[in-house]
Amino acid sequence: MSYSPLIRQLIDALRILPGVGQKSAQRMAMQMLERDRSGGLRLSSALQAAMDGVGHCKNCRTLTENELCPQCADPDRDDTLLCVVESPMDVFAVDQTGFRGRYFVLKGHLSPLDGLGPEAIGIPELLERIESGAFTEVIVATNPTVEGEATSHYIAQILAPRGITISRIAHGVPLGGELDLVDNGTLTHAFAGRKPIAL
Amino acid sequence: MSYSPLIRQLIDALRILPGVGQKSAQRMAMQMLERDRSGGLRLSSALQAAMDGVGHCKNCRTLTENELCPQCADPDRDDTLLCVVESPMDVFAVDQTGFRGRYFVLKGHLSPLDGLGPEAIGIPELLERIESGAFTEVIVATNPTVEGEATSHYIAQILAPRGITISRIAHGVPLGGELDLVDNGTLTHAFAGRKPIAL
Repeated sequence: MSYSPLIRQLIDALRILPGVGQKSAQRMAMQMLERDRSGGLRLSSALQAAMDGVGHCKNCRTLTENELCPQCADPDRDDTLLCVVESPMDVFAVDQTGFRGRYFVLKGHLSPLDGLGPEAIGIPELLERIESGAFTEVIVATNPTVEGEATSHYIAQILAPRGITISRIAHGVPLGGELDLVDNGTLTHAFAGRKPIAL
Repeated sequence: MSYSPLIRQLIDALRILPGVGQKSAQRMAMQMLERDRSGGLRLSSALQAAMDGVGHCKNCRTLTENELCPQCADPDRDDTLLCVVESPMDVFAVDQTGFRGRYFVLKGHLSPLDGLGPEAIGIPELLERIESGAFTEVIVATNPTVEGEATSHYIAQILAPRGITISRIAHGVPLGGELDLVDNGTLTHAFAGRKPIAL
């Protein structure tokens, strides 16, 4: 019973943030109360506005407060390329690479043990999106995890009869690392996926 | 231009939290938007309520929304013991140890280079608090840093003529660590402050 109620409520509420435990929540609350009340108020209204206003893009299903997200609304993108990802954050990551096609955001990955089948993650909507578009290539950029691979494999299978190129982002050694720190599975993939050196 | 405006504002606003960079802010925003909107709204109102409502205890100057903080309002505490700390979070930490005296919260520590002298950190208010109370011992629990030590020394000096016991929390090896990982200064203090083993 050391903090007064309003402060305790704030500390408890901050703990919903991922990676924030009791100590960090205390430090965050104290820092805002002591040094940055206007920042705290700004955060409060940004939260309110986002929680109330943000929905899903009707095209690609990423998070946005408009009918179409910035990527779908952009007229200068390649309408023949569709990138399939697991979450809205992945759209941002892929966009940072300079990719300028279209996106489709699944609701995570297939996970039969958790009862998440094709319908739950939005495969029917993906098929609809592909049918209504003019895509010649679908790039599957699900996570390089067991579930992400299974999801990617499933998508490739159901799209196979449609005569569209289905590709998967490359597996291999990440840039900037050291070979002896790379795990065995990744290194096996890197060898299997080797390419001639272009001179 | 990957996120829509409301999401971008939320991510920017989250970055005022200590220890939260661009990536963590993105993850926090996405996590709340995708999985915990009610938590996000609760955080929004807790922030609003705390930023608007929380002021300082008129006695000890810790953060509270009432006139007196829970520690000052508690009638069952020892009115002869005063613990001086640098910040409201320290009140919580000291209270966890089972200390049941009174508190006084400075505004940080003396830092002449930053222009923070005795007035800036609230030494006059500390003297007032001591004069209006019946304290027989003042425990200085400022941080064990160079500035905290200097502040502690300064407080001891100005309180010396008043015939009150002034004590400083002990320096020594922290519990649960290994001796060879303890820094030299701490170990020197631990030797200088050694005590006979009570049997």
